[in-house]
Amino acid sequence: MLNYYNRIAGQSIERLAAISDGVFAVAMTLLVLDLHTPAAEAIHSEGELWRAILAIAPRLLVYLMSFLTLGIFWVGQQTQLNHLERSDRDLSWLHLAFLFSVSLTPFSTSLMAEFIAYRVALVVYWANILLLGILLYASWSYAIRAQLVKADVTQVVQQAFKRRVIGAQSLYAFGAALCLINTYWALGFILLVQLNYALAPRIGFLPKL
Amino acid sequence: MLNYYNRIAGQSIERLAAISDGVFAVAMTLLVLDLHTPAAEAIHSEGELWRAILAIAPRLLVYLMSFLTLGIFWVGQQTQLNHLERSDRDLSWLHLAFLFSVSLTPFSTSLMAEFIAYRVALVVYWANILLLGILLYASWSYAIRAQLVKADVTQVVQQAFKRRVIGAQSLYAFGAALCLINTYWALGFILLVQLNYALAPRIGFLPKL
Amino acid sequence: MLNYYNRIAGQSIERLAAISDGVFAVAMTLLVLDLHTPAAEAIHSEGELWRAILAIAPRLLVYLMSFLTLGIFWVGQQTQLNHLERSDRDLSWLHLAFLFSVSLTPFSTSLMAEFIAYRVALVVYWANILLLGILLYASWSYAIRAQLVKADVTQVVQQAFKRRVIGAQSLYAFGAALCLINTYWALGFILLVQLNYALAPRIGFLPKL
Amino acid sequence: MLNYYNRIAGQSIERLAAISDGVFAVAMTLLVLDLHTPAAEAIHSEGELWRAILAIAPRLLVYLMSFLTLGIFWVGQQTQLNHLERSDRDLSWLHLAFLFSVSLTPFSTSLMAEFIAYRVALVVYWANILLLGILLYASWSYAIRAQLVKADVTQVVQQAFKRRVIGAQSLYAFGAALCLINTYWALGFILLVQLNYALAPRIGFLPKL
Repeated sequence: MLNYYNRIAGQSIERLAAISDGVFAVAMTLLVLDLHTPAAEAIHSEGELWRAILAIAPRLLVYLMSFLTLGIFWVGQQTQLNHLERSDRDLSWLHLAFLFSVSLTPFSTSLMAEFIAYRVALVVYWANILLLGILLYASWSYAIRAQLVKADVTQVVQQAFKRRVIGAQSLYAFGAALCLINTYWALGFILLVQLNYALAPRIGFLPKL
Repeated sequence: MLNYYNRIAGQSIERLAAISDGVFAVAMTLLVLDLHTPAAEAIHSEGELWRAILAIAPRLLVYLMSFLTLGIFWVGQQTQLNHLERSDRDLSWLHLAFLFSVSLTPFSTSLMAEFIAYRVALVVYWANILLLGILLYASWSYAIRAQLVKADVTQVVQQAFKRRVIGAQSLYAFGAALCLINTYWALGFILLVQLNYALAPRIGFLPKL
Repeated sequence: MLNYYNRIAGQSIERLAAISDGVFAVAMTLLVLDLHTPAAEAIHSEGELWRAILAIAPRLLVYLMSFLTLGIFWVGQQTQLNHLERSDRDLSWLHLAFLFSVSLTPFSTSLMAEFIAYRVALVVYWANILLLGILLYASWSYAIRAQLVKADVTQVVQQAFKRRVIGAQSLYAFGAALCLINTYWALGFILLVQLNYALAPRIGFLPKL
Repeated sequence: MLNYYNRIAGQSIERLAAISDGVFAVAMTLLVLDLHTPAAEAIHSEGELWRAILAIAPRLLVYLMSFLTLGIFWVGQQTQLNHLERSDRDLSWLHLAFLFSVSLTPFSTSLMAEFIAYRVALVVYWANILLLGILLYASWSYAIRAQLVKADVTQVVQQAFKRRVIGAQSLYAFGAALCLINTYWALGFILLVQLNYALAPRIGFLPKL
C-alpha cells in the first residue's frame, strides 16, 4: 500500500517523449550560442569579413558534430519509445538519466574539439557516448523485463535494437582505443562511424553495420 | 454571464503538459550553461587538462542535484496530470505557479552549492522544494474538489498521492532542520531522501517511504 | 491553382499549439538567467548572504511579473485554440506574430522595472501588452470569419472571448494613462488588474471583470 | 537482418514534429537575448531613455527578420509533415539536417544585419535560406519516392509543394544576385519576397506567387 505511488507514477510515454524532445532541442541548439558575429570594428573589407567567417568555421564544425551525435541518439531513443506500450517510474528515471547525458554532449564535444591533441579530452568525449549507449541499452532491457513493450514487438526487434547499440558502442570503443596511437585517428574513426549511422542506408557505405 | 470566459478558459490537459515539459526542459538544461571548457592557454599537458576537468566536477555535481530535484517533481506532476480528466482556469494557474518554482530550482540549487556552509542558503534551497511540494499538493486537492480527476481514480489513488507529497516534505523539512546542527548533515540527508525517491524501488532501500 | 499551396499550408492546430508552448516556455524562463548567485568573495557571514539574496529580490519580482503577464496570455491563447477546429496559413501567421510579441515580454518588463520612474518605459511595457491583446483579438475574429471555429462554439462563447480581451485591454489602457499622474500608480494599477485575472475566481475579488 | 534496425528506426511523425517545434522555438527566441535594457547610469531623462530604446531598434528589426524567415520555413515544414503518413530513418535525418540549418538562421541573419554593406555577409545569409529550401525540397521528394505521403495526397498537392519551394528559391536567388549591384537592393528584394509569403493572401500583393 505504501508503495502504491510508485506503481502509478510516470506511466505516460507521451510525457517522456515530450520532455525528451525539449531537452534534445535545447541541447542541439546550445552550441549555436558560441557562434558570434565578428566585431564590426575589426572588419574593413570583404576579404577581412571572409577570413573572420572562416575563423568561426571550426566552431561550426564542433556544433555539427554535437548535432550529429545527438541526432543519432535521438533517433535511437525515439525508436525505442515507439515500441513501448507504456512507461513506468523506473523507465522514466532511466530516460531522465539518459537525458542528463544528452545535455552534457555539447560540453564534452566542445572539450574534445578544444583539446583535440589530448587523450583526456577524447576519453571524456567517449565516456559521454558510452554513457548514452549504456542508458539506452539498460532502458530497453528494463522495458522488456518489465513487459512495457508493445505486444507485437517480436524477439527479432528486441534483438535488433540491442545488437545495434552493442555494435555501435564496440566501434566507438575501438575508435577511442586508437587514441593510444593518436587522438586524431581516434576522433576520425569515431566521426566516420557516426556519419555512417547518419548516412549509411543512403550511400550504401558499411552496409553490414 | 460576465464570468463566462473563466468557465471556458484553460481546459486543456495537453497544453498544460506541453508547457510544463517545455519549462522543465529549459530548467533542466539551464545549469549546463555553467560548464565551460577550460581556457586553452592554461593547459599544457594531459595532467593539467585532467585537473582542469576535475575542477569543473563540483559544478557538474550541482547540475546533477538540480536535475535530480527537477526529475522528482516532473515525475510527480506527470503522475498527477495523468489522473486528470480535464483542467480548468484555476488548475492552470496553480500549475503555472508550480512551473515558476520549477524555473527557480537551478538558481536555488546553485546558491546552496556555492554557500554550502551557510544556513541561509540551505533554507532558501529547502523553501524552493517546499514551495514545489505545496503547489503540487494544492493543485491535486483542488483537482479533487473541482472534480477534474478521472472517474476511475479511487480514494486509494487520491490518498496515495497526498501521502507521498506529505511524506517526502516531512523528510525534507527534517533534513532542513538538521542545519541547526550542521548544514552538511542537512544537505546530505536531503540528498539521500532524493536519491531514495529516484532509485528506491530498484535498490529496495528505505522501501517503506 | 498557383495559390494552391496557401490553401493547404499551416492547417495543424497541434503544431501551432506546440510551437506556442515552446516559445512561451523559453520566454517564461528567460529572466531566470538574470538571477545570479552572489560572488563568494563578497560573503563572509550569514547576514551578508541574507542581504545579498535580498538584493536579488527586485529581479525576482520582475521575473514574477513577466511570468504573470505571459501566463495570462498563455491561458488566453490556449482557450482560443481549444475552440478551433483547424488552422490555416493566415491564422498561423497571426499567431506567429503573437508569439513574436510573447518573446518580447521579458525585455519590455525588464525595461519597465529598471526605469520605473520613466513614462517612456511604462508606455513601451503597455504597448507590448496592447500588441498581445490586439493579435489575440485579431486571430479570434479571423478564425470566426474564416469558419475555423468548432461547430459547437456558440455566439455566447465568441462574444465572451472578445469581451474579455476588450475589457482587459481597457483596464490596461486606463492604467497606462495613469502615468500622466505618476508611473508608480500606473504600474500598480496594471499589476492589480493582472493579479485579478490570475487569482480573481479564487478570491472573489473584482468578480465582475 | 542486420539492417533491421534501420527499417524500424525513426518512424514517428509526432516525434519529428515535436523536436522541430522545440528547435524552432529556441531558434526563434535566440535573438531576444541580444536585446538588453540600457545601462541605468547613462539615463537621466525621458528623452535619453527614448533615444536609448531607439538605439536598440535595429536589433529588434534583425530579430523580426530572423523570426520572419523561421516562420516561413516553419509553415513550410508543417505543411509537409501534415501530408505524411509516417516517417522513416532517412526522412528523420533529412529533417534533422533541416533543423540544423534552422538553428543557424539567427546567426546568419545577425551577420548580414551587422555587415549589411558586405557581399560576403549577404551571400552567407542567402546560402542559409538556400540550404533550408534544398532540404525541404529533398525531404519532400524523398517522402514521395519512399511512399511516406498519405494516400489522399494528389499529384496536384505534390507539385504545388515543389513549385512553391522552387518559386520562392528562384526569387531569393535573384535577390541575392542583386548584390552584384548593391547589397541594400538585394536585401530589400529578399525582405519583400519574405513579407509577401507571410502576408500575401491578406493584402493581395503579388497574388500569383
